Amino acid sequence: MEAIFYSKISDLLGLIKAKRPLVHHITNYVTANDCANIVLAIGASPIMADDMEEVEDIVSLASALVLNMGTLNKRTVEAMLAAGKKANELGIPVILDPVGAGATTFRSKTAERIVNEIKLAVIRGNMSEIKSISGLGSTTKGVDASEQDIAQSEDLKYGKSIAENLSSRLNCVTAITGATDIVSKGGKTLFIDNGHKMLSAVTGTGCMCTSLIGACCAVTKDYFTAVAAGILTMGISGEKAYEKLISSDNGSGIFRVKLIDSVFQLTGKDLEERGKVREG
Amino acid sequence: MEAIFYSKISDLLGLIKAKRPLVHHITNYVTANDCANIVLAIGASPIMADDMEEVEDIVSLASALVLNMGTLNKRTVEAMLAAGKKANELGIPVILDPVGAGATTFRSKTAERIVNEIKLAVIRGNMSEIKSISGLGSTTKGVDASEQDIAQSEDLKYGKSIAENLSSRLNCVTAITGATDIVSKGGKTLFIDNGHKMLSAVTGTGCMCTSLIGACCAVTKDYFTAVAAGILTMGISGEKAYEKLISSDNGSGIFRVKLIDSVFQLTGKDLEERGKVREG
Amino acid sequence: MEAIFYSKISDLLGLIKAKRPLVHHITNYVTANDCANIVLAIGASPIMADDMEEVEDIVSLASALVLNMGTLNKRTVEAMLAAGKKANELGIPVILDPVGAGATTFRSKTAERIVNEIKLAVIRGNMSEIKSISGLGSTTKGVDASEQDIAQSEDLKYGKSIAENLSSRLNCVTAITGATDIVSKGGKTLFIDNGHKMLSAVTGTGCMCTSLIGACCAVTKDYFTAVAAGILTMGISGEKAYEKLISSDNGSGIFRVKLIDSVFQLTGKDLEERGKVREG
Repeated sequence: MEAIFYSKISDLLGLIKAKRPLVHHITNYVTANDCANIVLAIGASPIMADDMEEVEDIVSLASALVLNMGTLNKRTVEAMLAAGKKANELGIPVILDPVGAGATTFRSKTAERIVNEIKLAVIRGNMSEIKSISGLGSTTKGVDASEQDIAQSEDLKYGKSIAENLSSRLNCVTAITGATDIVSKGGKTLFIDNGHKMLSAVTGTGCMCTSLIGACCAVTKDYFTAVAAGILTMGISGEKAYEKLISSDNGSGIFRVKLIDSVFQLTGKDLEERGKVREG
Repeated sequence: MEAIFYSKISDLLGLIKAKRPLVHHITNYVTANDCANIVLAIGASPIMADDMEEVEDIVSLASALVLNMGTLNKRTVEAMLAAGKKANELGIPVILDPVGAGATTFRSKTAERIVNEIKLAVIRGNMSEIKSISGLGSTTKGVDASEQDIAQSEDLKYGKSIAENLSSRLNCVTAITGATDIVSKGGKTLFIDNGHKMLSAVTGTGCMCTSLIGACCAVTKDYFTAVAAGILTMGISGEKAYEKLISSDNGSGIFRVKLIDSVFQLTGKDLEERGKVREG
Repeated sequence: MEAIFYSKISDLLGLIKAKRPLVHHITNYVTANDCANIVLAIGASPIMADDMEEVEDIVSLASALVLNMGTLNKRTVEAMLAAGKKANELGIPVILDPVGAGATTFRSKTAERIVNEIKLAVIRGNMSEIKSISGLGSTTKGVDASEQDIAQSEDLKYGKSIAENLSSRLNCVTAITGATDIVSKGGKTLFIDNGHKMLSAVTGTGCMCTSLIGACCAVTKDYFTAVAAGILTMGISGEKAYEKLISSDNGSGIFRVKLIDSVFQLTGKDLEERGKVREG
């Protein structure tokens, strides 16, 4: 994409730091801490709250709502639905991460209830999850991107058609992340080639990407650009994190630390120099 | 303060390492891991347990009980009340972190129930949370310290009066943390100027501070000094963590790692050389 | 042990990286993130799921099931039992980490229900926990290894007899971890002298060890070797992590990061050169 595109994203990231919007998460206990820290690193303010007694109140204070289906249970599913409906009433964007959709009936049905009962601004998943929600067969094995997913996402034409169809059906931005990320809405599609394979060696990088998208959606109504901004932030930060490693000290533990650092330090110049976004 | 004050705190920290007291937490799933690790770093032993079936048994083994209202739900609120009452029976100090009090009715009512039904040794929050519990208006937006909070806490005279009033009403040590921390009990007030703004870029530094206070209260009946010790440990460790960063590697990810390291390494000499505690 | 032993373990670790088996965890929210990251670091794929609605489906996709009793509650205990029974039906190995058994009636009874209702492949705990399950008195104080445990585990003859008896009673591999780790099954016992005392300064290193054992059990039916492999991976990684620290930067925060790195980087050569396994 031309410079104007990256400059728009850079402005959006500046707006997050200026406004510090509150991003309400109903999410899993495995990656909640990383999601909170990455939301702080991009300049927004996270709040995790999942009880029926308060989710409507919390989301009313927020500028975006992230629903993440990891470690879901009956109690939190009800909270997700209540919070989502309240967000819809108030015009607050809802971002769904359908973790593990397709892996179990419970997850698939929960994803179905959410997309049926709530107007989403964004849905972001890996190929298996998005295929499952699209009613296509899925090969979901775990919650972390499998090599199979990555191979499938290389089939970009196929991925693009799935993203376009789901986007059209749900009237929301659809993102399929993998080796190449696909972002689609209203017939417009982007491919993003940033990222690093080490990202799949750390748990929750998908969740964190969704949280970054949440932070970006909190400051603009242009959710398409917001999704690209969130994914680009994650991808470029993954690249920068890997470059910071030294050969004798290049494990997934320190990579995860430097990933948060890289989000914290990301500049408009990084976006321009490193961004690999093209029309799909 | 004079050297004798820091020497008393240094002794207290030594006592923690010698006794390794058990600190029972009923806390949120976002920052529980960091709280456990910081409690280990100061030399105490953490245990997180939140089910009605066992909280009374667990607290009976412990030397302090930390009640942290992040990600609370109906189940854990009941557990907090049961554990708190048992702690009161046994003379075990109860430390309340009223995360998000004022943000929702549920949180405000829960904080109210806790202060009404349980005799607290300590309450520690940011300005918004303490104002809310004091029955004053609050501007709680999220769970991480807002700039507004920091600005308000610069109004030290105002903060002091709030802390003194709440301390007198609840007959417990009241701590308001911010750019300057305020600790008050029985008409005696301290101001602590340690800390670093990077602490607000990491989630849960408030929770961690409360956990450190819990560890300190576990080895002495002088809760006023214990609270100062916990806050001072956090503040000085934040300063040391920042100093350890190098300019090319100064993000919030590595800062968080070095914060735990700094608590682990803290010495009596650090307290003496760096402590900025004054009478309020 | 002779070279052939370490070479067998090295092959097993290679198999994990080749197969990337799914390891289902029903576990606590304090250390879940570290457990997921260490399972990824050894090359397997973690999934945490604890709701009755889906645990049977999830475990059916998995190659091993880890039941970890930290932060247990009535809801998750029922899920553990259901998942465990399903795993038994399908011949999937079940690994129990009886965190805090002996500390409360709830934990002891839960451990009892699990060992009575589920056929375990492995049970791994510290001395207090294993003694409690063995019906002997226990001195469980917290959930992190106490110095007392370490002292007790030095009494290797005593530990060996406890491990042998429990192994024989439950017909499963029994592991008692401490300064020296004891692994026993069918009259065969190993002592492992790897590890580093810094491991007890980080929360959840016991949980992480159990998760590594889960990953190892996911690729072989030789659970005895798998348990040795998991414990050896943890012990040697602890040693390597400590060696990577520099004297001015040697806290528990950075140690934890380097622990994950060391698991990620572990080679067959490390096992051979550093392994301190002997017949017990």
